[in-house]
Amino acid sequence: MNERGVNRQWLLRRHPVGRLAASDLQFHQGQIPALAEGQLLIRVLLVAMDPAIRAFLSPRPGYRPAVEPGAPVTGMVLGEVVASRCPGRLIGELVSGFGSWSDHVVGSGAQFVPVPLELGQGPSGDLAAYTHVLGSSGLTAHHGLTVVGALATDDSVLVSAAAGAVGSLAGQMARILGAKRVVGIAGGPDKCRLATSRYGYDACIDYQAVADLGAAVRAALPEGADLCFENVGGAPLQAALDVLRPGARIVLCGMISQYDADGPVPGPPNLWNLIVHGARMQGFRIAGLLNDRSRSREVLGLIDQWLRAGRLHYDIDLRDGFEQIPQAFAALSTGQHRGRLVVRINTAQAASAC
Amino acid sequence: MNERGVNRQWLLRRHPVGRLAASDLQFHQGQIPALAEGQLLIRVLLVAMDPAIRAFLSPRPGYRPAVEPGAPVTGMVLGEVVASRCPGRLIGELVSGFGSWSDHVVGSGAQFVPVPLELGQGPSGDLAAYTHVLGSSGLTAHHGLTVVGALATDDSVLVSAAAGAVGSLAGQMARILGAKRVVGIAGGPDKCRLATSRYGYDACIDYQAVADLGAAVRAALPEGADLCFENVGGAPLQAALDVLRPGARIVLCGMISQYDADGPVPGPPNLWNLIVHGARMQGFRIAGLLNDRSRSREVLGLIDQWLRAGRLHYDIDLRDGFEQIPQAFAALSTGQHRGRLVVRINTAQAASAC
Repeated sequence: MNERGVNRQWLLRRHPVGRLAASDLQFHQGQIPALAEGQLLIRVLLVAMDPAIRAFLSPRPGYRPAVEPGAPVTGMVLGEVVASRCPGRLIGELVSGFGSWSDHVVGSGAQFVPVPLELGQGPSGDLAAYTHVLGSSGLTAHHGLTVVGALATDDSVLVSAAAGAVGSLAGQMARILGAKRVVGIAGGPDKCRLATSRYGYDACIDYQAVADLGAAVRAALPEGADLCFENVGGAPLQAALDVLRPGARIVLCGMISQYDADGPVPGPPNLWNLIVHGARMQGFRIAGLLNDRSRSREVLGLIDQWLRAGRLHYDIDLRDGFEQIPQAFAALSTGQHRGRLVVRINTAQAASAC
Repeated sequence: MNERGVNRQWLLRRHPVGRLAASDLQFHQGQIPALAEGQLLIRVLLVAMDPAIRAFLSPRPGYRPAVEPGAPVTGMVLGEVVASRCPGRLIGELVSGFGSWSDHVVGSGAQFVPVPLELGQGPSGDLAAYTHVLGSSGLTAHHGLTVVGALATDDSVLVSAAAGAVGSLAGQMARILGAKRVVGIAGGPDKCRLATSRYGYDACIDYQAVADLGAAVRAALPEGADLCFENVGGAPLQAALDVLRPGARIVLCGMISQYDADGPVPGPPNLWNLIVHGARMQGFRIAGLLNDRSRSREVLGLIDQWLRAGRLHYDIDLRDGFEQIPQAFAALSTGQHRGRLVVRINTAQAASAC
């Protein structure tokens, strides 16, 4: 797809105002980066579109440093090792990790971990699954529910962005792990139908169709929620805070509703409910888990069993071509995608004999 | 102080708008309540003024039921048992628990637990201490820091309302328990002086005197905070969210800044930092701990050792007279008090022989 020796990149041209526009990005063709001792050179095959990428494109007080104009946009990638100065890491190995929207990225061996090809359908199968259910989305859903959210049997669970990449898995896993009732919030009738028909939700509230989201959530969870898996922030988070049961946990996984905001977005007005109900809200990222290969393999092995048993369903919206990245990312904001949105920018090559 | 057989009460006349005004309350003289099987009749000696009382005087969606007009205002009280239909509970026993602004209250034996007279100065000493450092304030500070906040040695700690009833104890206990640095936020130079000179804070920021509270907190905690003990909400909570270290804990003990608000008060705009730093915010109330006599005695015994060793200081602002309650409560909002504000409405009587 690209010439050898050329490294296509999407650089940030300027900090976006509102939604990321194609004009905020700059197409760049540069050199393939040089490799330092201990590093791997990765030829990127798949780039995962994650709404949280937007959050790191604007400088915000107290946040981690934003991507600066002139630098490549960062995100999760899957690729093949094409050069290695890392002992024990071989050319041809398929790896995933936090990279950038580039044909080639470099990183340490710890940063790019081998894809668990022994799970799923193997190297000839659906590589994109390793960026989703057998990768960061699956780990995020499982870690969020079990470790951060301490999911217990018979919990009632509320999931926002219920048909999204992580939400669709979180809802199903909550059910598999013994939740009593799983209710979703999603935008539009199609996503809600998907949530109840394919992802196993007991009910799904279309936030675009109800006048009072809080009232709708209370009606769907008359006994309240023990665990709220929050991907959106804003109105869904406020609704979650109003249905907390004693000792409830809000798992703060994402805040999609706020990534495009130009200025500060007020938080929910009902945090007091955390005190009333002795509840907690906990944020998390899975960078540490991704690098803990032993633990992440264990979780992915469990997920693989659920996949093989037909208990877990996932959807990947695969688009082709490096030039498609800006439009693909924009589709995340408008919800015009299904499941995990992934852009294939290169195809795998057999490692050549040398 | 009051006639035998008469039960003075402060009833809620109407849900307050803004600060609780004397005109929102109604003085009432009624009958002493009848005692059912399993109950104690308590003659109230001390009524503790707690800012959170205000939060329960307004109906708010999702909150626990508000005190309704015509009902007595509820809060923590200390009193003596004057009649018992509870096996094993004796007349003359000093007890504390959640009661109301009344001369007499009834409750179960579980609701009113014996005051730990074996600690502190005993029955002839400072009874008000059992509503404060040797009672709910002390337990709140200790439980919030250690159980909810999982305080670890060398943590950096931020406490808002640093010179308040709970804050003054939380700051000192954090230091005693091994915190590396303890920074407070308080209103006015007197409270800040008290915080650093008497309550052991390394630094205290006068939020009334700084233009940018967030910048002042960052300057005082250049390496960030591991534990934020939050009593106020609003600007201090926002500042706390901007100095979180990885894995930090925000202990949500109170939200003084919002109790007087007539409508919803927006939450902090930077909850996203919980995700960035893998941090949690946890609310709590100590009702369960107060009723767990074994555990609360254990904690109070530890606090008593600190008191005897001169390592812990506390202040009680004691006011006299049932009619003083409305003005005393108002003083909480304006900050015109020092330490725990307690109103003595009756004096202890020796149990008469029968």
